[in-house]
Amino acid sequence: MQTRGYAAQAPDQPLAPFTFERRALGDRDVQVTIDFCGICHSDIHFARNEWGFTSYPCVPGHEIIGRVVSTGKSVRRLEPGQRVGVGCFVNSCGHCGRCRSGHENYCETGVTMTYGSMEADGITPTFGGYATQIVVDDHFVFTLPDGLDAARSAPLLCAGITTYTPMREAGITEGSRVAVMGLGGLGHMGVKLAASFGAEVTVLSRSPNKEEDARKLGATEFVLTNTAGALEALAGRYDAILDTISARHDITGALNCLKAGGTLMLVGAAPEPLEFNAIPLLFGGRRIVGSLVGGVPDTQAMLDHCGHHGIVSDIELIPPEEINTAYERTLKGDVKYRFVIDCTKL
Amino acid sequence: MQTRGYAAQAPDQPLAPFTFERRALGDRDVQVTIDFCGICHSDIHFARNEWGFTSYPCVPGHEIIGRVVSTGKSVRRLEPGQRVGVGCFVNSCGHCGRCRSGHENYCETGVTMTYGSMEADGITPTFGGYATQIVVDDHFVFTLPDGLDAARSAPLLCAGITTYTPMREAGITEGSRVAVMGLGGLGHMGVKLAASFGAEVTVLSRSPNKEEDARKLGATEFVLTNTAGALEALAGRYDAILDTISARHDITGALNCLKAGGTLMLVGAAPEPLEFNAIPLLFGGRRIVGSLVGGVPDTQAMLDHCGHHGIVSDIELIPPEEINTAYERTLKGDVKYRFVIDCTKL
Repeated sequence: MQTRGYAAQAPDQPLAPFTFERRALGDRDVQVTIDFCGICHSDIHFARNEWGFTSYPCVPGHEIIGRVVSTGKSVRRLEPGQRVGVGCFVNSCGHCGRCRSGHENYCETGVTMTYGSMEADGITPTFGGYATQIVVDDHFVFTLPDGLDAARSAPLLCAGITTYTPMREAGITEGSRVAVMGLGGLGHMGVKLAASFGAEVTVLSRSPNKEEDARKLGATEFVLTNTAGALEALAGRYDAILDTISARHDITGALNCLKAGGTLMLVGAAPEPLEFNAIPLLFGGRRIVGSLVGGVPDTQAMLDHCGHHGIVSDIELIPPEEINTAYERTLKGDVKYRFVIDCTKL
Repeated sequence: MQTRGYAAQAPDQPLAPFTFERRALGDRDVQVTIDFCGICHSDIHFARNEWGFTSYPCVPGHEIIGRVVSTGKSVRRLEPGQRVGVGCFVNSCGHCGRCRSGHENYCETGVTMTYGSMEADGITPTFGGYATQIVVDDHFVFTLPDGLDAARSAPLLCAGITTYTPMREAGITEGSRVAVMGLGGLGHMGVKLAASFGAEVTVLSRSPNKEEDARKLGATEFVLTNTAGALEALAGRYDAILDTISARHDITGALNCLKAGGTLMLVGAAPEPLEFNAIPLLFGGRRIVGSLVGGVPDTQAMLDHCGHHGIVSDIELIPPEEINTAYERTLKGDVKYRFVIDCTKL
């Protein structure tokens, strides 16, 4: 199926229009016309080969919202016209312990990423959501609850699930004390979701001008961490801290702010090494947990939770021609809080 | 009660004979005559003020085995003559959530360390086990199972519980794959305990001359980590890795050796910061967990487990006059695997 999209052809080239073939609809496949696709920081890392394993051309995009066009003959639960989402991965082995327990994101034989992987045939690259349509195995297509704005729901498929899953696994609930570090695409979803779980949310930031937004998003407290003694005053305070900072930073201060047994949830993929002092980790029985998006059951549960609570992302909607400008602005942190591409204009 | 012991009087002074007063026996106290006390690396850090909060004189020692001499009138479960152990802490608030759940080691108001803390009166320093006797609240005195050699059991109170608790919490059981990094006092107990849980144990080391011991202690595999590609070949292999190295080291290689969802258990208190790359933590949903000894119920469970399996430490028994030499040899790693002071010779 001929598909129009935007692709990077080399690490140092801007993204440009690109036409490619999607696979023919298989029995278990769903053909989705893409309406909106969010721009995730990972898209930029990947388009520019900053993780070192990009092959070109590269069509990024894994925060996809669209509508079902047609379904393969084995697909029972979806119908043409239904609003759906596709997230960061589109296939997995289905047999390993991780897949069988709904943690397809950690599939033992390796998950098939929405872009930058190979299709099941082993030779066709997967292309992402900066495109007019996509063909995806039924198991990896999520239903979008009624009432949620489609464009503003796109970032739920990555920024939403990336912050939802570790907070659920850390047991964040009514009355928990949670801090969020980094108020960007991930952080702003983290604040909204933590508040929706009934937690008392603090935003830790170096920018005083983020306070107003933090409170609007649902934080009840805002602490400037670059003033002397600010972190020390929070020693032992939080059940969990969501660290969304994707650059080199010292995490020892954050570890000290956790209660004994508390969890630092790392979701920002800093390419440089992170440093910490083992003493607060040991002396408080604390933990640092990495988390990468979430499995299929968690992703649908997250969307249903967002539907129930009316949670969507704060976005800036752009036409496809502005992708490269949006990349530059994302790198500068100049977006509140996620760019979403209007793929109907492709 | 007048007590003889060995104390450091300043960071740069060797330990020397020292006489001091233990508190009078209270209603809930147990007076213990000390037979043996292990030398833990922490004793050295502390005697030399390497963590910066030592007050002098300092009597170290928290791997204590002895016999009950007398008990306060409220103590029901212990009788004179009984063999008992005292570990790293001798009091806690008893009221906070951590204490009530048997995690006294993480008491919210701060646990009273066996040495280097203050008694409940707030002015009398606690002195450790390099001494002839000790007076301890009943709740913090453990019974030593019959059949275990007393001197060789002393290190169970710190090296044993320090490795037992995080492995139990990480769910190590029959068939788990566990690796142990650092084959010293902690590491050798980690190998013995992991094997006793039914795990398949690998020792990761830079010293080929440790292989024979590793296998004697219960490891079925030994991998030299400083040969090219050695760690890479172990990618995704272990359910958990016990990292007992107490100096600066990169933990990224170890993180890569964990299965998805696997746990790196840090128990070595390196004074310098540790470095890791967030990518393997995120991409495998892995975790780094700090752990400091264990709570009261876990400590008794560990001793009972050791009694059941006949597990004790490999030790070198020394008279008190050799404490300073033993410190130097411990720092050089020249001990298999723990020095234990014969306190009956004080």
